[in-house]
Amino acid sequence: MTTEYYLHVSCPDASGLIATVTGAVAEAGANILDLRQHTAVDIDTFFLNALFEKPDADESFETTFSNIFSLLATRKNMEWSLEPKARKQRVALLVSKTSHCLYELLIKHRDGELDCEFPVIVSNHPDLAGVAAQFGVPFETVDTSKGKAEYEADLESILARRGIDLVVLARYMQVLSPEFTDRWAGRVINIHHGFLPAFKGAKPYHQAWRKGVKMIGATAHFVNEDLDQGPIISQDVIRVSDGSSIAELIRLGKDVERKVLLDALSLYLSRSVFVRDGRTFVLR
Amino acid sequence: MTTEYYLHVSCPDASGLIATVTGAVAEAGANILDLRQHTAVDIDTFFLNALFEKPDADESFETTFSNIFSLLATRKNMEWSLEPKARKQRVALLVSKTSHCLYELLIKHRDGELDCEFPVIVSNHPDLAGVAAQFGVPFETVDTSKGKAEYEADLESILARRGIDLVVLARYMQVLSPEFTDRWAGRVINIHHGFLPAFKGAKPYHQAWRKGVKMIGATAHFVNEDLDQGPIISQDVIRVSDGSSIAELIRLGKDVERKVLLDALSLYLSRSVFVRDGRTFVLR
Amino acid sequence: MTTEYYLHVSCPDASGLIATVTGAVAEAGANILDLRQHTAVDIDTFFLNALFEKPDADESFETTFSNIFSLLATRKNMEWSLEPKARKQRVALLVSKTSHCLYELLIKHRDGELDCEFPVIVSNHPDLAGVAAQFGVPFETVDTSKGKAEYEADLESILARRGIDLVVLARYMQVLSPEFTDRWAGRVINIHHGFLPAFKGAKPYHQAWRKGVKMIGATAHFVNEDLDQGPIISQDVIRVSDGSSIAELIRLGKDVERKVLLDALSLYLSRSVFVRDGRTFVLR
Amino acid sequence: MTTEYYLHVSCPDASGLIATVTGAVAEAGANILDLRQHTAVDIDTFFLNALFEKPDADESFETTFSNIFSLLATRKNMEWSLEPKARKQRVALLVSKTSHCLYELLIKHRDGELDCEFPVIVSNHPDLAGVAAQFGVPFETVDTSKGKAEYEADLESILARRGIDLVVLARYMQVLSPEFTDRWAGRVINIHHGFLPAFKGAKPYHQAWRKGVKMIGATAHFVNEDLDQGPIISQDVIRVSDGSSIAELIRLGKDVERKVLLDALSLYLSRSVFVRDGRTFVLR
Repeated sequence: MTTEYYLHVSCPDASGLIATVTGAVAEAGANILDLRQHTAVDIDTFFLNALFEKPDADESFETTFSNIFSLLATRKNMEWSLEPKARKQRVALLVSKTSHCLYELLIKHRDGELDCEFPVIVSNHPDLAGVAAQFGVPFETVDTSKGKAEYEADLESILARRGIDLVVLARYMQVLSPEFTDRWAGRVINIHHGFLPAFKGAKPYHQAWRKGVKMIGATAHFVNEDLDQGPIISQDVIRVSDGSSIAELIRLGKDVERKVLLDALSLYLSRSVFVRDGRTFVLR
Repeated sequence: MTTEYYLHVSCPDASGLIATVTGAVAEAGANILDLRQHTAVDIDTFFLNALFEKPDADESFETTFSNIFSLLATRKNMEWSLEPKARKQRVALLVSKTSHCLYELLIKHRDGELDCEFPVIVSNHPDLAGVAAQFGVPFETVDTSKGKAEYEADLESILARRGIDLVVLARYMQVLSPEFTDRWAGRVINIHHGFLPAFKGAKPYHQAWRKGVKMIGATAHFVNEDLDQGPIISQDVIRVSDGSSIAELIRLGKDVERKVLLDALSLYLSRSVFVRDGRTFVLR
Repeated sequence: MTTEYYLHVSCPDASGLIATVTGAVAEAGANILDLRQHTAVDIDTFFLNALFEKPDADESFETTFSNIFSLLATRKNMEWSLEPKARKQRVALLVSKTSHCLYELLIKHRDGELDCEFPVIVSNHPDLAGVAAQFGVPFETVDTSKGKAEYEADLESILARRGIDLVVLARYMQVLSPEFTDRWAGRVINIHHGFLPAFKGAKPYHQAWRKGVKMIGATAHFVNEDLDQGPIISQDVIRVSDGSSIAELIRLGKDVERKVLLDALSLYLSRSVFVRDGRTFVLR
Repeated sequence: MTTEYYLHVSCPDASGLIATVTGAVAEAGANILDLRQHTAVDIDTFFLNALFEKPDADESFETTFSNIFSLLATRKNMEWSLEPKARKQRVALLVSKTSHCLYELLIKHRDGELDCEFPVIVSNHPDLAGVAAQFGVPFETVDTSKGKAEYEADLESILARRGIDLVVLARYMQVLSPEFTDRWAGRVINIHHGFLPAFKGAKPYHQAWRKGVKMIGATAHFVNEDLDQGPIISQDVIRVSDGSSIAELIRLGKDVERKVLLDALSLYLSRSVFVRDGRTFVLR
């Protein structure tokens, strides 16, 4: 049996890092299948993402690999992680009333294009229960009228009960508390319907229309305590005519939103996203 | 002899405006060749841009047309203008040290794709005199070390002497005074190397890199007293890799900047740009 | 009560056509709400698409309008049509086993973005019955093993029974006979998963990969007797990496296909598509 | 002194190739700075492009490296090449009467964005001598009226005298003989003003207009004996309105042509282009 692993490395730039890392993988008896790397010269940082396979990986392999890599990591000041590709992330989808992002993720998942599990859809409204049912995903509601602390405790308990690794806000219209986003740092992805950092906050399409921008966009980002300011994972835009009303911008924007959120989730699942110095570095 | 005119109309929306305007043109004995219109439902405003031809237009035609249209304008609360297509705008190009926008405008002009005249290139540095000479355009320098009031007086005197209608800041690295931008309101176009309203001010590519945006852009806009906040005429973006350094963003951005500035100037020259409520409405 | 109508006009180019048409609409007591026009100078042809409203339109209005327009049409050699906006087109969706185009049309329809009815989904396979059920649309199967003539007779009978105006082939993997496409000329839209006219016929993504093209696309077109050669309504492309396998091209192409097919149907429904000289002229 | 080299490798796919190649580079005492690789699963072929540095590279380094790599290459059935980055390619530009591609290459070269030399511009018309003079590049004409064999002999003699490595046809309106393209196989790049493989041959914009395509494009490709069928290096498209005349398509297409040709030349110069099975594999 061959096992596939994702290896994720970042460290201060230095000569020969690619050879060093690939050498260590070879030393562990594994074969690199795919390797992507960037050097961010502006902050002298090296990023590497590799997919490798280990033939006949037994229980001891991860330990062996860790031993080899820990030495290297200390010497090179590396952050690194290793994950078996086969272990599927368990992703909770949080939604409110708008269905386009939810449909997109469910349809792509059904088509086998998202390598994760969706154990639950959580909402502060009952409206999308029917969509969840169409795709056979459990649907749970939370009551935000209880006050933030209590409702977020309910949310946490759902996430714990379902064994959730990652939370995706698929047009979820509630601001999460700093306590929540701290606990889930790097594990909550939101879709913002504006081309951040422009048009933060509410009603971004209204803001965009008033400003007369010629392209509208959407941004998927990690959520942190600063509203709409977390590290950006994926973005896209479309050109709009000045004849478009705000209502048309909202309609047109939906296709960008669902595309960008899907892209961000795919990138996260393939371990392609690094966060450093308050921004992401995505290795496509 | 047939004369062609641009007609530019905006007014509060009402039923039957297209028929009313086209009827008035017909009443004046002219034929509409091209008509574009938008209704901005969010501010209940109607915009119309027509190109028409008048066979055997003698001196009295513009008077006749004005008489017909003035009545209409009063009744419908219209802003309107009429301009013979043959009258070429005289455009001053202001530059500093960077040549890519200047080259683009000069090359497209030589190819017959910009329906205007370039009577002068003005700069606060001597560096681009050679490019001006390549294309046979007079080159004059201004001395910004004199202090803003005196140097802008020199600039105004050049513009007056050259009979300039429109000023294009083709990567001109000086902030114009509110007095200047007031006097030239709606007649100064700037290219900003950021996707406004994000990344106002200096070093937009540095800002974009730090924020980790996935697309960089450029914005051509009318200049007003608020730095980088005038009405947007044209914008475009390109996708960039997170492996791009700031230096690469700057290099990649140059092609977007020159494209957007050229587009904005072309739209201005074809009278396709309306300004209303602090933004533009462009009829493509 | 106010009634809205689409007016569709094409004719040999001449001076003053816009004024003539808008004048005739005014004469009929109606107000133009939206007007788009092109002149195709290469074939000297004028196209106009208008949306107008008629206050208090009684039964006699269409007759009155026809009388006015018929005279004009004879004089100017016009083709024209008039349709009440409120009359919804009845559209049959034909599918095989692939669901992405079907989902897109059903979701957008549910969201109120497609101004038509879907009275039936017809398929040569049972696979997508579940999707039809999710959205409450009747699903009927046809048996292609009967031989083309008999099976197409069954298909025609379904279309007749359901009162179908337009047929959309949403990844329907059967070639229709010339007899069928003749009878339904201008009323069958297909999505082809290639950037036509390149890559006609089967397995366009395989063809594209072998050729090493750097962008893949999709094309929605009217179906005629020449396979994949009918007039093109909408197209789009995406950039692909040379690292993409054929399987990845197929996956990536799905988003382009569904987008292009949706766009073509929307354009058809808003009467924006003219066919002349073997190609379309779309007035956006 | 540190020397930088491009390493270019392709071979049948196998496990561990990345580690093998990077190990061999390390064995030669060099450090990899940048590495890109693809595996084309459809033809089971591995491609790798690396930039590495060798500190204190003396004359013997290339021999040492060759010895190490030749063994590897035999074992893995590799094609490979090694080139010092500092050695600039000498590129001849062939032009006819159209200046936009020529200007683009000369301006980008002057801006330091093309890492090559332009020792000569060759043309079958005198029209662009002035542009060559603007940028101080020698301009030579060839007389095609002499007959193809004799005129191509003149062309070859210019290329030999100028020590040319690569020929770029920057809108050169002459078909080269199979003898010429054979001798220069893989070293002649052409820009075709169509989105190949559609619209081969003459007047591609006329063909595109007649077909009613909604996007027009351009293609840069290696030239071989089949007209407009050589391996594609770079492509791009822009969306056009159906209101565009053929003349407008020609004008709009110019920006795509110059962009695509510049991109293809840049990719060639950074050794990013592999040719295999009649197509390219570009490692961006």
